[in-house]
Amino acid sequence: MENKIVVTIGRQFGSGGREIGKKLAELLGIAYYDKELMAFAARESGLCKEFFEKADEKVSGNLSYAFSLGYSYMGAYAPYNDILSNDGLFKLQSDAIRNLADKQSCVLVGRCADYILRNDPACISVFIHNKLENRIQRIMQNEKVTEQEAKEKIASIDKSRASYYNYYTNKAWGVASSYDLSVDASVLGIDETVLFIKSFVMKRLELASR
Amino acid sequence: MENKIVVTIGRQFGSGGREIGKKLAELLGIAYYDKELMAFAARESGLCKEFFEKADEKVSGNLSYAFSLGYSYMGAYAPYNDILSNDGLFKLQSDAIRNLADKQSCVLVGRCADYILRNDPACISVFIHNKLENRIQRIMQNEKVTEQEAKEKIASIDKSRASYYNYYTNKAWGVASSYDLSVDASVLGIDETVLFIKSFVMKRLELASR
Repeated sequence: MENKIVVTIGRQFGSGGREIGKKLAELLGIAYYDKELMAFAARESGLCKEFFEKADEKVSGNLSYAFSLGYSYMGAYAPYNDILSNDGLFKLQSDAIRNLADKQSCVLVGRCADYILRNDPACISVFIHNKLENRIQRIMQNEKVTEQEAKEKIASIDKSRASYYNYYTNKAWGVASSYDLSVDASVLGIDETVLFIKSFVMKRLELASR
Repeated sequence: MENKIVVTIGRQFGSGGREIGKKLAELLGIAYYDKELMAFAARESGLCKEFFEKADEKVSGNLSYAFSLGYSYMGAYAPYNDILSNDGLFKLQSDAIRNLADKQSCVLVGRCADYILRNDPACISVFIHNKLENRIQRIMQNEKVTEQEAKEKIASIDKSRASYYNYYTNKAWGVASSYDLSVDASVLGIDETVLFIKSFVMKRLELASR
């Protein structure tokens, strides 16, 4: 597919990464996948969406726990026991991500998409971070929680994302060299950061088509 | 000072970060400091340049070793014993960096300048990385060494830079959230990466002056 654009976005919780991904996709006029990706993966595999959501970006302990719960009250899923391992689910989601990125231009948020698509020459990987005080404010506003709750969510969700990424890739979550581009969204603000990332993507596309 | 621009550049060894810093300074028409910074710091403190070069971006073991050597064959420096500790030298260099950035727009490469200038609103911090295979090629060409020697230099010098940075700052070297912007110089190439960073700096300046 000529001039295909695939942008993967890793992000700190509360950084604005999801909003940036959505706006970037709109600006580029291409598809956007985040939670939608899980629904797609679920449809592809024939498994119910809730299974994927339970296991989303969690590893080992958490994932096994989700499975043990799912397995105990969802007897109908017993035949899927083999693929309902951490690695089985990751494999299903990886296949779904590869299928998506193979067929169309898109922005993919989270879920190790940068690693899964590492051999796709169209793929550009971006990591969004932000100052801690801004992240706390965003989460307090978006989720109507206290400052303390926002801090706890940041610690817990970032830890979970890092564990998931570090377990399934040979790279380290949030480390600059794991991505093509990393940016603090507070320096230019959300909208200008979207334009800045777009300029990187378009320049890369221009250079690749020379 | 109105419209002052201070860009600090951290970089993986062999990434092209130094070249990017130099070209960015030329493009912006501002001063550039790398090894020159040490000469400046030396002049400011009255110590000889070689002392700073020996200790440059090394901590603890290495630094003590450099000092022990210097101290044994440079008896003349005995009066400086007090400030010739790790922290003393870092302090001198930090003062020099603050003096430089206070007086003029400049690009500063390495030496924890991003941390030292963290309270300067004009300061923009950038980290340059590159794919391992490109770094090996750059070092083989620039330093006329074998592939194996280039690999060993990368491991040793990056380890040294990380130790120095992690020891003297409350941040982690090479971690995206330690910098405003991190970029893989191989995606757009050196010259386009310089232009891309310039666009970030100019947009930031424009937003700040509104």
